[in-house]
Amino acid sequence: MVKVIKFTKMHGAGNDYIYVDNTKYPIANPEEKSIIWSKPHTGIGSDGLVLIDKSKIADFSMRIFNADGSEAMMCGNASRCIGKYLYEYGLTAKREISLETLSGIKLLKLSIKEDKVEAVTVDMGEPSMELIEYREGGIKEEMIAQPIKVNGKEYKATAISMGNPHLVIFVEDITTVDLPTIGPVLENHSYFKDRINVEFAQIQTNGDIRMRVWERGSGITQACGTGACATAVAAFINKKSGRTSNVVMDGGTLTIEWDEKSNHVFMTGPATKVFDGEIED
Amino acid sequence: MVKVIKFTKMHGAGNDYIYVDNTKYPIANPEEKSIIWSKPHTGIGSDGLVLIDKSKIADFSMRIFNADGSEAMMCGNASRCIGKYLYEYGLTAKREISLETLSGIKLLKLSIKEDKVEAVTVDMGEPSMELIEYREGGIKEEMIAQPIKVNGKEYKATAISMGNPHLVIFVEDITTVDLPTIGPVLENHSYFKDRINVEFAQIQTNGDIRMRVWERGSGITQACGTGACATAVAAFINKKSGRTSNVVMDGGTLTIEWDEKSNHVFMTGPATKVFDGEIED
Repeated sequence: MVKVIKFTKMHGAGNDYIYVDNTKYPIANPEEKSIIWSKPHTGIGSDGLVLIDKSKIADFSMRIFNADGSEAMMCGNASRCIGKYLYEYGLTAKREISLETLSGIKLLKLSIKEDKVEAVTVDMGEPSMELIEYREGGIKEEMIAQPIKVNGKEYKATAISMGNPHLVIFVEDITTVDLPTIGPVLENHSYFKDRINVEFAQIQTNGDIRMRVWERGSGITQACGTGACATAVAAFINKKSGRTSNVVMDGGTLTIEWDEKSNHVFMTGPATKVFDGEIED
Repeated sequence: MVKVIKFTKMHGAGNDYIYVDNTKYPIANPEEKSIIWSKPHTGIGSDGLVLIDKSKIADFSMRIFNADGSEAMMCGNASRCIGKYLYEYGLTAKREISLETLSGIKLLKLSIKEDKVEAVTVDMGEPSMELIEYREGGIKEEMIAQPIKVNGKEYKATAISMGNPHLVIFVEDITTVDLPTIGPVLENHSYFKDRINVEFAQIQTNGDIRMRVWERGSGITQACGTGACATAVAAFINKKSGRTSNVVMDGGTLTIEWDEKSNHVFMTGPATKVFDGEIED
């Protein structure tokens, strides 16, 4: 008999995934399914596949697979969508939910209006300065506004980890950055052993941060939750903003607060359901 | 109350549309919906929207909207999918179905295996030589292997109508054709008042025709049914093939027969269901 899998496509700031309740529809080969289902035209079309499951150490767990089949540690946009999914599909009535991810347990706080989840705040944990072997000779140091050369041009870059590594570069005019060319060079730069996500950012006249991202393994995407957090943290460290910033990306805007007391970064933004679907396994 | 619309995403040779049974789920603003739903990331993601409805002059009717909201006359890949949809969703038990389209009534013949539609043959009607005002001064003539210049290079082109206009250009080596550059120039060439679809084709050593298409209003697509027909007809007229050819496109292969007796072109190829979905109106 043909097995049918129910799924929901959702997006957070234009970052879209196929969400499956793994407790009802266990997926044996998520790497393969993510590749096949993520394809445009012949597949469902998405940035990847997210499996929602039970957890022994939190309310629920998530696993997230990129469109190339690789497993991601964590995705802020996806975790907001999971908050909406868990509440609106009746898996929980809680408004504060703990979520097990590959980069630890994340806490979600739901903003609800007329029984619909309008926005979700995710506790993204503490940022850390990435220790980078960016000097010849392999001495590990923090990288804050340090020079890095790409295609003959020198930028000043700050490396921040939000569970995954980010390289944030502030520029005067973001429209002059040729991201499709520069992104992959920086992602694979010899400084970074595990490759790195790349954010170019510009402080706007109203104080908001305009940002474009090159994601490790995915290339240019509409938005990146951990990238927005890293960018806001880098902006504060480099004295370019206060502790709360709006980070404006192609796919939408996220509000990032780096709380002084807890040292945690809180990310607030929308989560949108696109449609429900059924596909044969 | 929120209205929910059921749809099915199907593809024919990689040409994917959102199919809606308009008798059950009437869509008031298909142009707008096609734009919104066709978008990747925030929409369902597709090449467009197809509405299936009753007809006074045929078994069923179809209307097809491109991702840019414009209405298409006809699409061979979509009509094959409609054949599969009508049979497998129980709208008809017929294996020969007449379908009203903006370019006339099309006849579909289903190949069925274990109650599933494996392939569909579409009677695409008679081809006609497009009368093109391609000489200065506006004299309308047939255009068969006639010179046309683009970006300083001269090609020999044949203009064929399959209900919609096509310009077919045979080359020795299709891999040398920079379609993203040449396609839009030919689409908007001054010879063609209503713009034109563009096919570059190469006869392979086994006699199959390798073809890549630039679709009017859509750009490069994985496959184009009327384009495959026009290419096979142009190949026969230019003595490059017999009356039956396999046309190999990025999205898949279609078998095209130009029947001598009826003068009709018959297109046979696969139709694939991707998934069923429900979206809020």
